[in-house]
Amino acid sequence: MNSEKDAMQLIKRGCDEILLEAELQQKLSREKPLRIKAGFDPTAPDLHLGHTVLINKMRQFQELGHHIMFLIGDFTGMIGDPSGKSVTRPPLSPEQIQQNALTYQEQVFKTLDPETTEICFNSTWHGPRTSADMIRLASRHTVARMLERDDFSKRYKTNQPISIHEFLYPLVQGWDSVEMRADVELGGTDQKFNLLVGRELMKAEAMEPQVILTMPILEGLDGVQKMSKSLNNYIGIDDAPNDMFGKIMSISDDLMWRYFELLSFRPMQEIEQFRQDIEAGANPRDIKFLLAQEIISRFHDAAAARAAQQDFITRFTKGAMPDEMPEIRLKLEHDKISIAALLKQAGLTSSTSESLRMIQQGAVKLDGEKISERGLELARGSVLVAQVGKRKFARITLE
Amino acid sequence: MNSEKDAMQLIKRGCDEILLEAELQQKLSREKPLRIKAGFDPTAPDLHLGHTVLINKMRQFQELGHHIMFLIGDFTGMIGDPSGKSVTRPPLSPEQIQQNALTYQEQVFKTLDPETTEICFNSTWHGPRTSADMIRLASRHTVARMLERDDFSKRYKTNQPISIHEFLYPLVQGWDSVEMRADVELGGTDQKFNLLVGRELMKAEAMEPQVILTMPILEGLDGVQKMSKSLNNYIGIDDAPNDMFGKIMSISDDLMWRYFELLSFRPMQEIEQFRQDIEAGANPRDIKFLLAQEIISRFHDAAAARAAQQDFITRFTKGAMPDEMPEIRLKLEHDKISIAALLKQAGLTSSTSESLRMIQQGAVKLDGEKISERGLELARGSVLVAQVGKRKFARITLE
Repeated sequence: MNSEKDAMQLIKRGCDEILLEAELQQKLSREKPLRIKAGFDPTAPDLHLGHTVLINKMRQFQELGHHIMFLIGDFTGMIGDPSGKSVTRPPLSPEQIQQNALTYQEQVFKTLDPETTEICFNSTWHGPRTSADMIRLASRHTVARMLERDDFSKRYKTNQPISIHEFLYPLVQGWDSVEMRADVELGGTDQKFNLLVGRELMKAEAMEPQVILTMPILEGLDGVQKMSKSLNNYIGIDDAPNDMFGKIMSISDDLMWRYFELLSFRPMQEIEQFRQDIEAGANPRDIKFLLAQEIISRFHDAAAARAAQQDFITRFTKGAMPDEMPEIRLKLEHDKISIAALLKQAGLTSSTSESLRMIQQGAVKLDGEKISERGLELARGSVLVAQVGKRKFARITLE
Repeated sequence: MNSEKDAMQLIKRGCDEILLEAELQQKLSREKPLRIKAGFDPTAPDLHLGHTVLINKMRQFQELGHHIMFLIGDFTGMIGDPSGKSVTRPPLSPEQIQQNALTYQEQVFKTLDPETTEICFNSTWHGPRTSADMIRLASRHTVARMLERDDFSKRYKTNQPISIHEFLYPLVQGWDSVEMRADVELGGTDQKFNLLVGRELMKAEAMEPQVILTMPILEGLDGVQKMSKSLNNYIGIDDAPNDMFGKIMSISDDLMWRYFELLSFRPMQEIEQFRQDIEAGANPRDIKFLLAQEIISRFHDAAAARAAQQDFITRFTKGAMPDEMPEIRLKLEHDKISIAALLKQAGLTSSTSESLRMIQQGAVKLDGEKISERGLELARGSVLVAQVGKRKFARITLE
């Protein structure tokens, strides 16, 4: 185990908030493995790099010798949203959940050590509990405090219905911490309220309360909005190596530092050194290569990462793609834009008819791939490198 | 079974509201016994006449041939108020509830026919239900609608804590209606919100919703505040015949009509005739005798009722107690008043020292009983007839 100070530094890396840090310090000082909880929704096993921010933090705790508990919230998952108001929470069958759990394991064990990771299902303890137990649990919190939660407060004020069971879910999640005897719970900043509920329930059970540690929500490829599938600004951890490579290379230099902090396991000192190298004249592209290599190695393997890099270099660098090219942000009027209009608006052609002609001549490439479909449309959120002829390039973000 | 119109008249007697009357009419028109639900709190088996308003309505339904379900809310009773905020809802043990249920039966079967009364316990169906069932049930109602309930709304606005489990109790009660397949639920006007929840849950289960029928809250002996033990303005159904008689005789003539409507089983035509008799010169006291006779016969027996009346006549009427005497309401500064001060304030003596002298001489009677204790104190809420010497009388209400 590292020194206490090093440990604390690693734990704090990239994190948004620790409540309370003094308590965490005390827990660490006992030199016993801490029980680290992080809960995951069983509905969405298709992870992207945004989800891995939390998993990486778990890995860091694991490296420090702590006990990692990967909790799958299957109890609430099987209930879903019985009021039928939310389409994103359909109830899942036990079979679906079992399947999702396997997918999760396959995905997270690319980062976590399976030997020392405990996979938990909260149906284990919630399943046998009775209606009376639920009523007793509900008595531990007040309506007013629950309505303080940001999203509830907004919905209440704007007369959007909140079903009463939605007040029970934070309590169910909080009770997980009691059952798991969590020392620390990790979650996104959007989970802070729920993590605090767990803290309070533990206190009410006369247990030492868990420390909560929140991680920021990762920005997507555009560097602005949160990474999400629906915004199409994500890197899926199942993406093919070449896609991953191209997407990582498409991010801005600023965002690269953010990704290094939250997605890389390189020590911060090394990352600081990269900054200094660039200031001293190193090519940012070469540093970005290192990030792409590390991430692709993690989710595929080192050979695939090397091949992707080789491919990238062949397609772009050797194909005379310049290191520096204009960065263009296009604000779309609609959700989609045709390729012909896009090229014109990006200034790569002088008219949509020129665009169409260039496509027909095979002179247009997107992310290094020749385009032949004249009616191609691109969606808001896309980030791509467009090339017209041999010399016109632009890195375009559709907003 | 009476004609439909007569039936409806009997059902509506004294009731505050029927929702919806058209639905009730339809249910009655099928000429099948209706399932009539009324729920009782298992904590308070010590009934007074206020509680019997509902029981009398059950009896009327019973007389019309319907199926009566006397529900004891033991499920929530065993949970109580786990937040510990309410001292009036301590959790009860199954033994206590069993004991209370027996007391209830003993008391209500003085009015209801045991042969055709079903005693139900809601733990029967709620006990085996799971935490997941509770969550699903909670999804049937929104926070906003629950906060519309008068008492919740007030508490929320004045920042008094409402525990979340308090939002679950109306749903638990409402679910009882589903399980009991209630056609009609009876309750006090203060229960209207909860009765409506049952109606909604039945609709959501694609059942024909229950009709709700609310009964007014009975006024106590003072004719102003609701009858309650803590206000000491009640007639307990276990009160001794003489006490019952005295208390009933102490009520005002106005209140007598109210009690006739809600507590007597005499037909309304007969009661209307009594009014006319009094207008034509009959002594209201004699009509009040009839009310006292009926109630004492119900909770004791006819012989006891006759004896109580005889005793009353001996003590008061024959003791030259006038039919008409001043009615005095004394507003107490404190919770109690000494007998000496009371007599002075009521104008029966000119000073407290005269009061004390008269007590010493054995010239003071309360409710016809000679008083010897000079330090006697009387509590707010008491209603009594005081007599000093042979000719000074007053009917005094302590407020």
